[in-house]
Amino acid sequence: MILVIRPDATLAQIEHIVETVKELGYTPHVSRGESRTIVGVIGDETKPQAANFSVIPGVEQVLAIMKPFKLASREFSNADSIVYVGKTRIGGGSLAMIAGPCAVENYETMDIVAKYVKAGGANILRGGAFKPRTSPYAFQGMGEDGLKILQEVGQKYDMPTVTEVMDPRQIDLVCRYADMLQLGARNMQNFDLLKEVGKTRKPILLKRGMSATVKDLLMSAEYILAEGNKDVVLCERGVRSFEDSTRNMLDMSAVPNVKGQSHLPIIVDPSHATGRPDLIPSMCRASVAAGADGVHVEVHNCPEKAMSDGPQALLPHQFLDLMADLRRLAEAMNREFSKTNPATEEVH
Amino acid sequence: MILVIRPDATLAQIEHIVETVKELGYTPHVSRGESRTIVGVIGDETKPQAANFSVIPGVEQVLAIMKPFKLASREFSNADSIVYVGKTRIGGGSLAMIAGPCAVENYETMDIVAKYVKAGGANILRGGAFKPRTSPYAFQGMGEDGLKILQEVGQKYDMPTVTEVMDPRQIDLVCRYADMLQLGARNMQNFDLLKEVGKTRKPILLKRGMSATVKDLLMSAEYILAEGNKDVVLCERGVRSFEDSTRNMLDMSAVPNVKGQSHLPIIVDPSHATGRPDLIPSMCRASVAAGADGVHVEVHNCPEKAMSDGPQALLPHQFLDLMADLRRLAEAMNREFSKTNPATEEVH
Amino acid sequence: MILVIRPDATLAQIEHIVETVKELGYTPHVSRGESRTIVGVIGDETKPQAANFSVIPGVEQVLAIMKPFKLASREFSNADSIVYVGKTRIGGGSLAMIAGPCAVENYETMDIVAKYVKAGGANILRGGAFKPRTSPYAFQGMGEDGLKILQEVGQKYDMPTVTEVMDPRQIDLVCRYADMLQLGARNMQNFDLLKEVGKTRKPILLKRGMSATVKDLLMSAEYILAEGNKDVVLCERGVRSFEDSTRNMLDMSAVPNVKGQSHLPIIVDPSHATGRPDLIPSMCRASVAAGADGVHVEVHNCPEKAMSDGPQALLPHQFLDLMADLRRLAEAMNREFSKTNPATEEVH
Amino acid sequence: MILVIRPDATLAQIEHIVETVKELGYTPHVSRGESRTIVGVIGDETKPQAANFSVIPGVEQVLAIMKPFKLASREFSNADSIVYVGKTRIGGGSLAMIAGPCAVENYETMDIVAKYVKAGGANILRGGAFKPRTSPYAFQGMGEDGLKILQEVGQKYDMPTVTEVMDPRQIDLVCRYADMLQLGARNMQNFDLLKEVGKTRKPILLKRGMSATVKDLLMSAEYILAEGNKDVVLCERGVRSFEDSTRNMLDMSAVPNVKGQSHLPIIVDPSHATGRPDLIPSMCRASVAAGADGVHVEVHNCPEKAMSDGPQALLPHQFLDLMADLRRLAEAMNREFSKTNPATEEVH
Repeated sequence: MILVIRPDATLAQIEHIVETVKELGYTPHVSRGESRTIVGVIGDETKPQAANFSVIPGVEQVLAIMKPFKLASREFSNADSIVYVGKTRIGGGSLAMIAGPCAVENYETMDIVAKYVKAGGANILRGGAFKPRTSPYAFQGMGEDGLKILQEVGQKYDMPTVTEVMDPRQIDLVCRYADMLQLGARNMQNFDLLKEVGKTRKPILLKRGMSATVKDLLMSAEYILAEGNKDVVLCERGVRSFEDSTRNMLDMSAVPNVKGQSHLPIIVDPSHATGRPDLIPSMCRASVAAGADGVHVEVHNCPEKAMSDGPQALLPHQFLDLMADLRRLAEAMNREFSKTNPATEEVH
Repeated sequence: MILVIRPDATLAQIEHIVETVKELGYTPHVSRGESRTIVGVIGDETKPQAANFSVIPGVEQVLAIMKPFKLASREFSNADSIVYVGKTRIGGGSLAMIAGPCAVENYETMDIVAKYVKAGGANILRGGAFKPRTSPYAFQGMGEDGLKILQEVGQKYDMPTVTEVMDPRQIDLVCRYADMLQLGARNMQNFDLLKEVGKTRKPILLKRGMSATVKDLLMSAEYILAEGNKDVVLCERGVRSFEDSTRNMLDMSAVPNVKGQSHLPIIVDPSHATGRPDLIPSMCRASVAAGADGVHVEVHNCPEKAMSDGPQALLPHQFLDLMADLRRLAEAMNREFSKTNPATEEVH
Repeated sequence: MILVIRPDATLAQIEHIVETVKELGYTPHVSRGESRTIVGVIGDETKPQAANFSVIPGVEQVLAIMKPFKLASREFSNADSIVYVGKTRIGGGSLAMIAGPCAVENYETMDIVAKYVKAGGANILRGGAFKPRTSPYAFQGMGEDGLKILQEVGQKYDMPTVTEVMDPRQIDLVCRYADMLQLGARNMQNFDLLKEVGKTRKPILLKRGMSATVKDLLMSAEYILAEGNKDVVLCERGVRSFEDSTRNMLDMSAVPNVKGQSHLPIIVDPSHATGRPDLIPSMCRASVAAGADGVHVEVHNCPEKAMSDGPQALLPHQFLDLMADLRRLAEAMNREFSKTNPATEEVH
Repeated sequence: MILVIRPDATLAQIEHIVETVKELGYTPHVSRGESRTIVGVIGDETKPQAANFSVIPGVEQVLAIMKPFKLASREFSNADSIVYVGKTRIGGGSLAMIAGPCAVENYETMDIVAKYVKAGGANILRGGAFKPRTSPYAFQGMGEDGLKILQEVGQKYDMPTVTEVMDPRQIDLVCRYADMLQLGARNMQNFDLLKEVGKTRKPILLKRGMSATVKDLLMSAEYILAEGNKDVVLCERGVRSFEDSTRNMLDMSAVPNVKGQSHLPIIVDPSHATGRPDLIPSMCRASVAAGADGVHVEVHNCPEKAMSDGPQALLPHQFLDLMADLRRLAEAMNREFSKTNPATEEVH
């Protein structure tokens, strides 16, 4: 860190600053410039009290030099990480195509949607059994019954599954049925939940919070990695902004931004980012072109009657058209959809 | 709700819209204008499937007429709610002055800080035992030991206490020691936690999320109220914005904005909203003048060595000066600090 | 419009509302629902006083039904507009590749950069002669001398040119030298300037303001169209957000969002949107995949010594690699770079 | 400035960095730490090319130490500046109470509103003759006729006047009639306009742009000051945010934030910040309590029929009540409304 000293700081204040830096276990280097004195501080910037330097009288600002995350950083692991969800490979040129309804509603709907998304090339099946809803009066999910349906349909169509976990008390249950645990945007900084999923050995889909910076997202991944779970896939899903014609603002630049700083795979969820089916296909295409390791798309055979987020789901035929587009783009970029069943994949 | 129909919608589409409205249990009223046809929809807008109208082919937009919250609304209860935390009264002209260190660090610090804030007129003592920290490597709080210290010091200085709960599994423990449970900004939409604290009979301090609208905040309060806990105090603590010289942007207008729509008390936390001690006093003054039911201020006797958020704490003498200002302002507005011990209050 | 009436409105208030609607030249239709009375208002929503309905006592909210722009809308002109800048065609499947240094600095730099960008496939040459700079002490542009250099180099390499105009008093001068006028983000709501460029017959490149919604952008285009100038190309260049690792946040979804509502072409400027050369190539690829009608990229042969915005410029060899990528993507999407050379271009 | 060097930078890169720093006219100081090498750069950080350091290969980040504004800073002038508009004093404990209709509509309305606001204690009369409107089809202002009415009514009630100027070509005209020139939020970074009003000798009311940081606002003030006009009053009027129940988000902390860094007076405009008359009075009270040097409030005797922004105007009796509140608060804070009548004002 570097402490910039106020121009009107007294000598006694500067001495106190130097002493305090030493007391907190760091080594100070004072350097006097024409218009400002600065104090370089050598030591671990991630220690708890590093933030306190700013309140020592006479300090004008504190400039951080180091990144606050370690295990998630490119410095820690230069090669792109690859995460397996069942047989589906995410990262290193292999694209995850995660699709399914917002919520598990019943067996029939799950079965129909799964058949279609499998046909299009989806390689992970999604569906929520525990639903975070803004209103306490909205459908809150089917719970364990939903998990059972998701698992059964996933097995029928040979697709691994992902579903959201919202509460540390649900983790054991969800782990029994699903292949990947999703942490939703509203829980990106639910630190107890991050620690608990970090203790499992399931791959985690960590969604960016609605007001989280890219650095915040990587810090939350660090919580999971620090518990020993290395299988983290990040997900850009839009942030809050003043633009009122889309549900959130998709920060597409987060894809290369994350990839420059971290080895973790990152996918994009245009369904939640835009909330508008008319924008989803072009945003999926843009995601693949931007270098994302996959997309996450909600599909429903009858959005009018969906029990959750119907308005942001694609219809099955729209999904099939989109997948054809994405294959063409992936090819132009020397990348490919990950296969869930190498032996039979060539058939459809 | 009102469905605005696309100008190019076919008659068959309009018929299908009308049918679907009926199927979902609502009554449609079609009305043809010069440039647009609209369909009025009579029925409960808060039902799960109300959102789906927007995806019926031919619908251009859906306009909501009703507010999505009920128990939190002025329509439900016109008079201002009053919440008691121990003997401290919040609302109806009585101001809560919540103060203390960010985290409980040890008995000595808690004792010194409590002595000062009590002298200034604070009527609720705060201190975190479970700390939500962006970094997994930062101090995470003392846990139960911290709760014991907080309780003991609160009793010594006759102040009820408030402390954060982050995980449903901590609630029983925290309830044994604290008088009020705080839900932090990062957990404002942790819906399982909202439901669980709604089942307790402790007053709740619900902080606004960093990207939550005022409506979102009231919807989260609704979760608690819907479980039967009526003692909810809201807290404005700043939202994320592009302004990079303050930690968050304090949305002062949330105070009258909430009061116009809801009967719940609302206080302001300028410590977290600004992250800068030089801005805290004027923002506390503004909060009282804006009509807030209290303020929440972090105080530390040695911010340089605080274990959490030192840079945003006031020093004890700054707090005493601030309280003198606030008393003068409160008087000019015919309001007063709530007293924790009517019999002895006049003494200090 | 639809006026939602407060549940506690008196009959006298509702009568006054109806009278006022009539007085302002609209036709009211009252309809009483279970929980709310609403008043439909037939007439021109874009008239000055339409906004005032919200202040009539008893009105709870005003819901707008019509879009506030006309000439810019898909309803006005369903087919995609095509804009010619010299011989370069923008829209209808033809991609504009606008490139050049941020500012015109001298002939030599302009010449070198132009040679490279032409080689890569750029079809419009950019360079600022009047520069909007946050600081009054920064380089403010070469003025007319810069315009001359831009024109001369553009002619040498057979590329039409675009340059910014900041002040109505500069328009005549800039029109003498440049083929397209750029209105910068900071001037998107400089309404006098919009009107004046609307009176010219030069194509206009209208950049989105840093806090402008997509609707605001289309309203500003409407100002130009209303003056009779139909050649407007929109440009997404990022908006202000809380994310502090990029200069702005590129709102990629603005591309399909605009295309759904308007016939005007839209391009993307990842240089200003991200401010980071490491993110520009992937954001250009994403823009083409999202359906943008072109990209705008700053290129400099020696960014270290550029006089303006060096940090966001690509080096010439980076630009050449990028153009190769974009051609491959454009092909995969059945689109192509517009050509500036009439000998080899099909008759349009 | 301080250049943080990448951990993988080569020795040759570091040498090139040092050479380039020298070539650009700065003095480098290299210092090698445990985990990072840094290069201190001594010299003028506001020079055009200072930004370019970030693109020299091997540089990871550039940390600025100095503030980019000078004349507007507390370092330049430690005492609070006082600005006179006619006989009205702004700053140094004297509060400006600027009030009037959004637009000048006709003599009668102006006369009625002026009579009321004068009675309440307003000391500057406002009214727009040139109106920046989002829509080209909205009322654009009365122009010179409006200026004449404003001047005449101001003289009748002995109040100096303020009105907006949008285009450099209007400045001479507006200077003939008005006592203070307003630069609106949309023109805060219209740099040509800033320079031109900097050449006048009229006091300037500079409104914060909707996406401007406090630093941006001070940089725009610097443009005016650099031209020799020292009479700049800043105005906080809300910024764009995701909160959709208010027109903008009032950043109340901007008041003490500006005062800490700059000697210029700052007032608050809750009318534009909130767009809601129900929130204006409490936000005016909060502004005074926060230490603002005045407020700016729109008042109209018949908001239903106002030609511009009726929905955000107070009624005359609401304004009178508000002024009574503000006097009481000002007194509690040892401040007072500036007086416009020389007979009763102390000689300043």
